[in-house]
Amino acid sequence: MRIAGLSAATGVSVATLKYYLREGLLHAGVATAVNQADYDDTHVRRVRLIRALVELGHLSIADAARVLDAVDDERVPIHTAFGVAQDAMVPRRERDDPLHAAAMVEVDRLVERHGLRVRPDAEVRAVLADALVAMSRFEMFGATPDGQVLDSALLDDTVAAALADAEASIEYVPGDAERSAQMTVVVVGTVVFEVAADAIRRMALEHASAVRFDPAPTRRQRVAK
Amino acid sequence: MRIAGLSAATGVSVATLKYYLREGLLHAGVATAVNQADYDDTHVRRVRLIRALVELGHLSIADAARVLDAVDDERVPIHTAFGVAQDAMVPRRERDDPLHAAAMVEVDRLVERHGLRVRPDAEVRAVLADALVAMSRFEMFGATPDGQVLDSALLDDTVAAALADAEASIEYVPGDAERSAQMTVVVVGTVVFEVAADAIRRMALEHASAVRFDPAPTRRQRVAK
Repeated sequence: MRIAGLSAATGVSVATLKYYLREGLLHAGVATAVNQADYDDTHVRRVRLIRALVELGHLSIADAARVLDAVDDERVPIHTAFGVAQDAMVPRRERDDPLHAAAMVEVDRLVERHGLRVRPDAEVRAVLADALVAMSRFEMFGATPDGQVLDSALLDDTVAAALADAEASIEYVPGDAERSAQMTVVVVGTVVFEVAADAIRRMALEHASAVRFDPAPTRRQRVAK
Repeated sequence: MRIAGLSAATGVSVATLKYYLREGLLHAGVATAVNQADYDDTHVRRVRLIRALVELGHLSIADAARVLDAVDDERVPIHTAFGVAQDAMVPRRERDDPLHAAAMVEVDRLVERHGLRVRPDAEVRAVLADALVAMSRFEMFGATPDGQVLDSALLDDTVAAALADAEASIEYVPGDAERSAQMTVVVVGTVVFEVAADAIRRMALEHASAVRFDPAPTRRQRVAK
C-alpha cells in the first residue's frame, strides 16, 4: 500500500507518518518510484506500537524511540526485555536527597524479602525510593521521617498482588513467537496494562472511599453515583 | 518564618515559592512589613503537597492547581474526594473512536460485575476504555479486534487485588482529622501510592519475565542480576 493507505489503515495522518519516518521510528517502505514507496503489515503494526507508546503511554517521541531501540536490538534477551523497555519509559533524573539513600536501602530489603530478580541498576528501584521518600515526608503508609518504613505490610501485600498479576500477564507473551512479536507484547503490555491497572486502582480507591466515608448512601445519592 | 526560612524548610528555591504564590497554589503569608511576610507550618505542608504533585506525580502547574482547588473546596465531600482529585490528575481528551464506545460498555460491565461505586462520569472510566481499545488493537489480554473483552479473568483478578489494596490504603486516612488533613492524605496517597504501585508492578514483571524466559540462571548471571 502507499502512504495514504497506511494512513487509512492506522488512522494516523500522512504528515505524522512522514515525521515518524524522518525520526527513524518507522522503517522505510520499499521504493517503487521517485517519491513513492510501498508499505506493508509490518508498517501497520509498527505505527500501532508507536501510537500505543505515545498516545496511551504519554511517552515523548524521544522516549518512544529509546523503547523502540530496545525492541529492535537483537542483543537484548527477551528475559531482560521488560526491564530494559521499562527503564526506557522512566525519565532518568539526579537525586541528591539524603533521604533517598535511606529509601534505596528499604527498596533493597523489599527486593531481598520477596526474592525478586530485578537488576541492581534498574531505574525502577530509584522510582520506588522516590515514592518512599514522599511517604516519609508526609509520614504516610508506615514511613517515618528518617526514610525508614516501619510498617511494610501494605508494600508487602502490594508486591504479593503484583507478583500474581505479573505471572498471569507474562503468560500472554507467546513462548514460540519471533523475538519481535514477543517484544511487542512485552512493550505494549507494559504500557497498556499499566494504564489499565492504574485506572482500576483509581476506581477501587473511589469505591473504598465511598464505602468508608459514606457507608449508607440514600437512594438519591446512589442514583447520582 | 520569612520566605528564606520557608525555602530552607522545604528545599524549594525562593524564586519557585514566589511563583507558587503568584499562581495562587500557595496562600499568602501574613504581611509584617512592606515586601515582607511571615510563613508558618501550613505553608510548609502546602509546599510539600505541591512538590509531591509536581515532582513525583509529574503534574503540570495547571493540573496541580486543579487538584489543589478540589483540596480547598469545602463543598467537595471527603467520600468523593478521591474521585475528584483523581479526575483532576487525568488529562481530559476527546475520543471519537468507535471502538472506544464498545470499550466503555466493557468498563460498565466490569464496574457492575464488581459492584464498584464509581461515578458514571468519572474520567477514569474513559482511561480504562482507552487501555481496552489498545488491547483490542493488539488482540492482547483477551481483547478481540471489535473492542470486546472475551477473557476478562486478568481484569477481574486485577480488580480484586486493587480492591484489597484500596481497602488497606483507605484505612490510612485519619477518620477524626480535619477535612484539609484528610484531603492531603487522599491526594498525596493517590499520587505517591500510584508511583509506588507502578514501580512494584514493573519489578514484578521483570521478575516474572526472568523466571519464565531464563528459569535457571547460571551463578554468573545470578550475580549479574
